[in-house]
Amino acid sequence: MLNAADATFLATLPEALLRPVTPADVEDPRGRWLGQGAAVAVPRDVQQVAQILRACAAARVGLVPLGGGTGLVGGQILPAGPAPLLLSLERMAAVRAVYPEENVLIAEGGAVLADVQAAAEAADRLFPLSLASQGSCRIAGNLATNAGGVNVLRYGNARDLCLGLEAVLADGSVLQGLKRLRKDNTGYDLRNLLIGSEGTLGVITAASLKLVPRPAAEGAAFFVVPDPEAALRLLALAQARLAGMVSAFELIHRQSLDFLSETLPQVRQPFARPPEWMVLIDLGLASGMDPADTLADLYAAAGDLVLDGVIAQSTAQRAAFWALRENIPQANRRIGAISSHDIALPLGAIPAFLAAAGPALARIGSFRINCFGHLGDGNLHYNVFPMPGRSRKDHEAEREAIKTCVHDLVHRFDGSVSAEHGIGRLKVGDLEHYGDPAKLAAMRAIKAALDPQGILNPGAVLRA
Amino acid sequence: MLNAADATFLATLPEALLRPVTPADVEDPRGRWLGQGAAVAVPRDVQQVAQILRACAAARVGLVPLGGGTGLVGGQILPAGPAPLLLSLERMAAVRAVYPEENVLIAEGGAVLADVQAAAEAADRLFPLSLASQGSCRIAGNLATNAGGVNVLRYGNARDLCLGLEAVLADGSVLQGLKRLRKDNTGYDLRNLLIGSEGTLGVITAASLKLVPRPAAEGAAFFVVPDPEAALRLLALAQARLAGMVSAFELIHRQSLDFLSETLPQVRQPFARPPEWMVLIDLGLASGMDPADTLADLYAAAGDLVLDGVIAQSTAQRAAFWALRENIPQANRRIGAISSHDIALPLGAIPAFLAAAGPALARIGSFRINCFGHLGDGNLHYNVFPMPGRSRKDHEAEREAIKTCVHDLVHRFDGSVSAEHGIGRLKVGDLEHYGDPAKLAAMRAIKAALDPQGILNPGAVLRA
Repeated sequence: MLNAADATFLATLPEALLRPVTPADVEDPRGRWLGQGAAVAVPRDVQQVAQILRACAAARVGLVPLGGGTGLVGGQILPAGPAPLLLSLERMAAVRAVYPEENVLIAEGGAVLADVQAAAEAADRLFPLSLASQGSCRIAGNLATNAGGVNVLRYGNARDLCLGLEAVLADGSVLQGLKRLRKDNTGYDLRNLLIGSEGTLGVITAASLKLVPRPAAEGAAFFVVPDPEAALRLLALAQARLAGMVSAFELIHRQSLDFLSETLPQVRQPFARPPEWMVLIDLGLASGMDPADTLADLYAAAGDLVLDGVIAQSTAQRAAFWALRENIPQANRRIGAISSHDIALPLGAIPAFLAAAGPALARIGSFRINCFGHLGDGNLHYNVFPMPGRSRKDHEAEREAIKTCVHDLVHRFDGSVSAEHGIGRLKVGDLEHYGDPAKLAAMRAIKAALDPQGILNPGAVLRA
Repeated sequence: MLNAADATFLATLPEALLRPVTPADVEDPRGRWLGQGAAVAVPRDVQQVAQILRACAAARVGLVPLGGGTGLVGGQILPAGPAPLLLSLERMAAVRAVYPEENVLIAEGGAVLADVQAAAEAADRLFPLSLASQGSCRIAGNLATNAGGVNVLRYGNARDLCLGLEAVLADGSVLQGLKRLRKDNTGYDLRNLLIGSEGTLGVITAASLKLVPRPAAEGAAFFVVPDPEAALRLLALAQARLAGMVSAFELIHRQSLDFLSETLPQVRQPFARPPEWMVLIDLGLASGMDPADTLADLYAAAGDLVLDGVIAQSTAQRAAFWALRENIPQANRRIGAISSHDIALPLGAIPAFLAAAGPALARIGSFRINCFGHLGDGNLHYNVFPMPGRSRKDHEAEREAIKTCVHDLVHRFDGSVSAEHGIGRLKVGDLEHYGDPAKLAAMRAIKAALDPQGILNPGAVLRA
């Protein structure tokens, strides 16, 4: 059992290292939970992080690392038990160095993702991690949760964009792994073990990140497809023709467009009659290639796979296409989902999953389903909403059955019940239920080996 | 202390699971060490692997997993101590399934890399892992050592090409991780922990592998560059123009060409007078692009960065260019290196490293240096040879000093002393000497947690 971070414990840390807890530190962005914390530690460097961890270890006090607070599975929210110390890297938010000729950038863990993107852009490079919360999420949080987003298809998850980490382990030891190397086979891959461990194995204090050259030209199009299977075949065609230059491939259902019309009518829609299914395809091309021509060639080659299309004719129009995609989560929030699911499936299983999921949910009740997301990665946001005139509150009693219905189906199709959001505290039960027992046992053994007192983000990922 | 795999132990396993040890099972490809083993276990499925592991655990017998036997750091060779059981997946060599529409292939651990490549090609896909030993190395060994090769620049290491693993842990439990998912944030990343752990944390029995579409057109060129710095600037230029379509970028020093002339005169050389430095650049392009034109445009854009060049005008010529590159290790073997180094450096540090290394070695003695390799990854094979008329045997006494000189310099420039070959048993001391103490401590804790008796590949990576 852990001890609370009481006044005696807090007195063991220099006052300058602490600040009071504000509401933003303990609020869940979806408003479901309220966290707690005795104080927020705000270190200025890795040695101060180590000092804080040593104090927590000595006093057996839990520590909850905070990023930008945008996580959707409660990884940053400890609602019950002995009050933990919170840790924010808000004072460690610098981009330390950019090496454009190496395509490498070194950032402190507290750096806001948008600031990292801007620093890369200032050096004529791209840091391709891109997600809705980029204006407030912090890089250590992105790495701790292995964040995804819209460019995973081409550039990978946060994991794939990290060359090295500096981190502090539970005993206060500092992992000095801030290498700028593309290849390094010297020992176990602790970097990837920490990435995605959601603050339960160590605190990431800085990262060496991969940059990529900015494409010489970029373009986007909405293509209307008859069904998700055609969308998958279109994706395969685009990839076969374009040698890796497809940057994003997003599926959008008519429900998304209807929600946008209803809640954000100012968002310009591409088609007079909202199609049942469409994709947003984004290309980043080589020098000398014309994006609109390339997309027109793809349209022509696609034949029956595409029913209609609009191709962005300018940078501004491409931005407008993306604004539509990026406003979908906002429209969803205004409607109010009963249950949201961040799922991944083998690409080939997506049509069968979608064919099965609608009827299965209809046996529970009448709902509107908004299915959209990163089709190229097999990652769908499959969200269930009330019918018009009803609210999520009317469906409280059905929420668990809806979630179980969707997750059971995902599991049956060999998918993942958390594609990009992580386990946090919301999905600990799902991991226990659907996870591989041998994997869970190995995870518990690793947690016990690296954090024997269980002070790091207690109760996240693994039950405390 | 482990027990030897004696007759009593072997009798606990069905006879059909065992075969006698052959010389090939215990030979080091460089002929430096001779391994030992009581027998070779040859399971037919994952349950038999689990049975073997349980028997080893119960009897506290060490197990050394064998792949194709091509590893260069002795990871597959246990020369001393209680005789271990060897384990070969030679009977588990099937490609189980190919999902072309998903760009996924499932292979058993014993599948030979070339067979995996061929199965991908038969489905009009590319499995981009490509290395000299592909005709005999096995996929579980590629993953256990996180193999690299010539296409890492574009497609990543073995690690980056693996979506999921089936593996047996030290207690005989089976990790069921053979997912076909691009995104899956459900718990700690055991896949990447096993990849690169060189058989010390588990036995990989099958893998879910990423395929990519075959480029619509491919091309290659030799470009003569004034120095490695110009080569790096040429790489940056190529990447900025070509949006990720540079598949390989190999640096070749004149010494390589001289060794080829001396030992393999039938290998066609591209230039009448061997240049001091040249690069082999390989492109995989989008539909409609012409490789020779694209390379000619790059040549024109490169200005002073390129002094001369030849561009392959046919598939056969491209193959001939690659044959030159691939014959360099063979020429090296015929000359006989005193000391070979598989190093990685931050790209920006390569010119300074090369400028420092030559003079530092000259203080030890007179040598010929052949520096070549995967410049795009910062991965150089920096090999030291005797002067003409002398042999490696003449330099036995200097070998340790040469290795230390090179590795100290690599460490000073924040590089890696094992870019792609791993630690095995050869570099255990290097890892202890140059490695981060916090990383080593965490590695030992993980090893103790997952393999408390130390039966898995004893003495590899970490001292037994």
